[in-house]
Amino acid sequence: MQSKTPSESRSIMTDLVLPSETNPLNNLFGGELLARMDRAASISARRHSRRIVVTASVNHVAFNRAIPLGSVVTVEANVSRAFKSSMEIFIDVWIEDRESGRRTKANEAIYTFVAVDDTGAPVKVPALVPETDLEKERFDAALRRKQLSLVLAGKMQPKDATELKALFIDA
Amino acid sequence: MQSKTPSESRSIMTDLVLPSETNPLNNLFGGELLARMDRAASISARRHSRRIVVTASVNHVAFNRAIPLGSVVTVEANVSRAFKSSMEIFIDVWIEDRESGRRTKANEAIYTFVAVDDTGAPVKVPALVPETDLEKERFDAALRRKQLSLVLAGKMQPKDATELKALFIDA
Amino acid sequence: MQSKTPSESRSIMTDLVLPSETNPLNNLFGGELLARMDRAASISARRHSRRIVVTASVNHVAFNRAIPLGSVVTVEANVSRAFKSSMEIFIDVWIEDRESGRRTKANEAIYTFVAVDDTGAPVKVPALVPETDLEKERFDAALRRKQLSLVLAGKMQPKDATELKALFIDA
Amino acid sequence: MQSKTPSESRSIMTDLVLPSETNPLNNLFGGELLARMDRAASISARRHSRRIVVTASVNHVAFNRAIPLGSVVTVEANVSRAFKSSMEIFIDVWIEDRESGRRTKANEAIYTFVAVDDTGAPVKVPALVPETDLEKERFDAALRRKQLSLVLAGKMQPKDATELKALFIDA
Amino acid sequence: MQSKTPSESRSIMTDLVLPSETNPLNNLFGGELLARMDRAASISARRHSRRIVVTASVNHVAFNRAIPLGSVVTVEANVSRAFKSSMEIFIDVWIEDRESGRRTKANEAIYTFVAVDDTGAPVKVPALVPETDLEKERFDAALRRKQLSLVLAGKMQPKDATELKALFIDA
Amino acid sequence: MQSKTPSESRSIMTDLVLPSETNPLNNLFGGELLARMDRAASISARRHSRRIVVTASVNHVAFNRAIPLGSVVTVEANVSRAFKSSMEIFIDVWIEDRESGRRTKANEAIYTFVAVDDTGAPVKVPALVPETDLEKERFDAALRRKQLSLVLAGKMQPKDATELKALFIDA
Repeated sequence: MQSKTPSESRSIMTDLVLPSETNPLNNLFGGELLARMDRAASISARRHSRRIVVTASVNHVAFNRAIPLGSVVTVEANVSRAFKSSMEIFIDVWIEDRESGRRTKANEAIYTFVAVDDTGAPVKVPALVPETDLEKERFDAALRRKQLSLVLAGKMQPKDATELKALFIDA
Repeated sequence: MQSKTPSESRSIMTDLVLPSETNPLNNLFGGELLARMDRAASISARRHSRRIVVTASVNHVAFNRAIPLGSVVTVEANVSRAFKSSMEIFIDVWIEDRESGRRTKANEAIYTFVAVDDTGAPVKVPALVPETDLEKERFDAALRRKQLSLVLAGKMQPKDATELKALFIDA
Repeated sequence: MQSKTPSESRSIMTDLVLPSETNPLNNLFGGELLARMDRAASISARRHSRRIVVTASVNHVAFNRAIPLGSVVTVEANVSRAFKSSMEIFIDVWIEDRESGRRTKANEAIYTFVAVDDTGAPVKVPALVPETDLEKERFDAALRRKQLSLVLAGKMQPKDATELKALFIDA
Repeated sequence: MQSKTPSESRSIMTDLVLPSETNPLNNLFGGELLARMDRAASISARRHSRRIVVTASVNHVAFNRAIPLGSVVTVEANVSRAFKSSMEIFIDVWIEDRESGRRTKANEAIYTFVAVDDTGAPVKVPALVPETDLEKERFDAALRRKQLSLVLAGKMQPKDATELKALFIDA
Repeated sequence: MQSKTPSESRSIMTDLVLPSETNPLNNLFGGELLARMDRAASISARRHSRRIVVTASVNHVAFNRAIPLGSVVTVEANVSRAFKSSMEIFIDVWIEDRESGRRTKANEAIYTFVAVDDTGAPVKVPALVPETDLEKERFDAALRRKQLSLVLAGKMQPKDATELKALFIDA
Repeated sequence: MQSKTPSESRSIMTDLVLPSETNPLNNLFGGELLARMDRAASISARRHSRRIVVTASVNHVAFNRAIPLGSVVTVEANVSRAFKSSMEIFIDVWIEDRESGRRTKANEAIYTFVAVDDTGAPVKVPALVPETDLEKERFDAALRRKQLSLVLAGKMQPKDATELKALFIDA
């Protein structure tokens, strides 16, 4: 199974914020943005694996910036690391100002998908080879996040989460 | 007002075909695709003009190829020519095969948008400068389409539609 | 196969403009109107052919008049001409003023549908016999539109588009 | 205020049953049909009164016949009687068979709407003058239904519901 | 088949009023509330019967109080009486004030569901045993409502609707 | 400002999985579940604070179990800890088997909301006083999660995340 680069499975979803997707402050509902990011991320996971993919988990997502009704929103998804049958997807969300055309980072999020066959059983996926500095940085961090996730789920002993532990021991 | 190239306002909308968007043959409804293309095209028109934009017309759209449930669909919109306050937008629709990853052209369409102010009155937009061969070809054809549209609407005499007339006289 | 008149397959869809269907100017999105017209037109095509029908193309659609939130919109679809397995559908859109009750023409559009069997293969449809003057006028124009569509798609030589050519030669 | 006939405010809504509107048996959800009937009935009430209208109540609605995915459904709404500021609307629902074209009655329902001004306060509406036999029959029954509704709400003594009482006394 | 109490199948659906669900006065559409109540009631009917259930009828529903955009709405459904294969479901709708937290009764409604097998044929359901005073009161009234419904549908002679008739005879 | 218990702001949202919410395996889309959980959690945050609330972040969410079309899904949200103007909300998701009536835990998730005034500025919220053992356990863990979130965002030094550090030091 041949490894792939992030750019081979990148997905870009540019769309408007519609009236039916806003909260009482006239901004995009958090839940709606979570759903859009899920679809964009699933497309990247599918392109990387060429398999049916299902959402396995959502890592910490911070909503730093409100996205007003009528905004043009770009959701860009990149595979940040591939494990045996799972893929971590990093999602960047941008909005742009209509008058100046300037793009601003509005959010980022990390989802994990699993590739499955028609019966829902996990299948192997290609390795990911990061190219740019940002891709390499996210690739390394993905391992620490996986360890953290296993520790929090009680599936790994803290002492075995080597990369993660270093963060606190050195502190 | 500074002219712009098509790549400065290109918009890309990659999304899934959801179950609520399919017809009895389990393919994407024509009407749903028309709505997606309208949103993608409006984003390009808005990026080119940096104004509020409204759909003015839809030119001939051919649905050559059914788009099945679960497909990954990419709608790419480019401004093909700018007139005084209107912009012709050319839309290409691609689907990709999950297993091979191969992209196939599924549809193309042409929409016209008008830039307006807060009261809905038309405002001037920047000129478009095509760069690639395809962009130049579409730029030229846009003028013939505008003439045809004016002739069909009874707002231009056939004899004045010079570029269009040539097509039939030479025949 | 017995021919039919337009009134035998006419479809009328009167509905409200809902908040989820409006653009930043609080008018019905172009894309939403395209989707409604597609559903209404497909019902007429289905009534005429008594078959599964799929959208084949959308001809020039002009959005002459904004349709505000809360409007009562009537979409009326009539088969304007039947070809071998395709049907041209003419769609008229009306809005009405709540206080005066007066109806105003807001848009018109032309869609083409193809009748298919369960496998998606085209099947024959009944001929259309126009009755009123308006129906006859639209019936004749439908042939010119079909020629134009074939010419633009490169499937017919301009010199063979007899009815269409006359428009320019006489000019 | 001039009285009106039912045909002056009749509304017809013909639309498809979309995949997003079906229950586990692949038939139209009861709740979706209730929402469609509400919109059609509100259009008739609005045409009769030329006012903003709000749903006041829904009378007994029987779902006699399942409406399968992909059906063409016609919802026809007629004002059956007007009171001071309220209007009773009678709704008939038809489905048609694709192959034979035969229409079958699927449901009927009765809604009551109240005409209001911008503040939500009730305003007077024109009287209704029934014309056909069916319209007259529904006009008479509307009074009995209003009495029944007032009795069940504890706002009228059973002894004062003259028309309704007759039904049981004679029995 | 073991009888059940209302609390065993009670369902509670607390949700927001979203922008896409409002009418021109910015209140929840009557039709949307009818659809929500249908879903909540169907869940109770399903829990009571452990079968597929379909809406059979909607009894008189009064919309006493407008429900504004952004409200928190609680729809509570309880089986009020079980017959052979049908169940009457009583639905109470509450809204709460954001600042005071006070809950107010907004509506109530009565739906009837029928339990069916995979072919849509009716199947037997457990009896209902009311416990509280309110449950007992609604249980008794359910019989009168069923008689009324049968009388209005012409399936029962008024003289045989014993409980209902008493209401008018004594008057 | 008076402190509150979790039960005072608990919210329960029981609803069906509709056809428009499913993925190619006919299970609830991850994105749709995220949106439902966001709405349920926002209701609890609003009940606790009696203020407008906006989603601030989503903590790790694991999708352990697919939720099939037609399922009855119960989303229960409880405030697990209140900070100055933010509230951590713990969400438990249950599905129930139609035939046996047995409830199974399908997912859990943690969202953080911030209470704001009409201008979007943060405002203080009441303290939370946990009562049951589970509530106390989640209350304690909430502090560690907040520290982790601050460390990951670079807003807290790992050495200052006392509770979190203990986890690894002791290891």
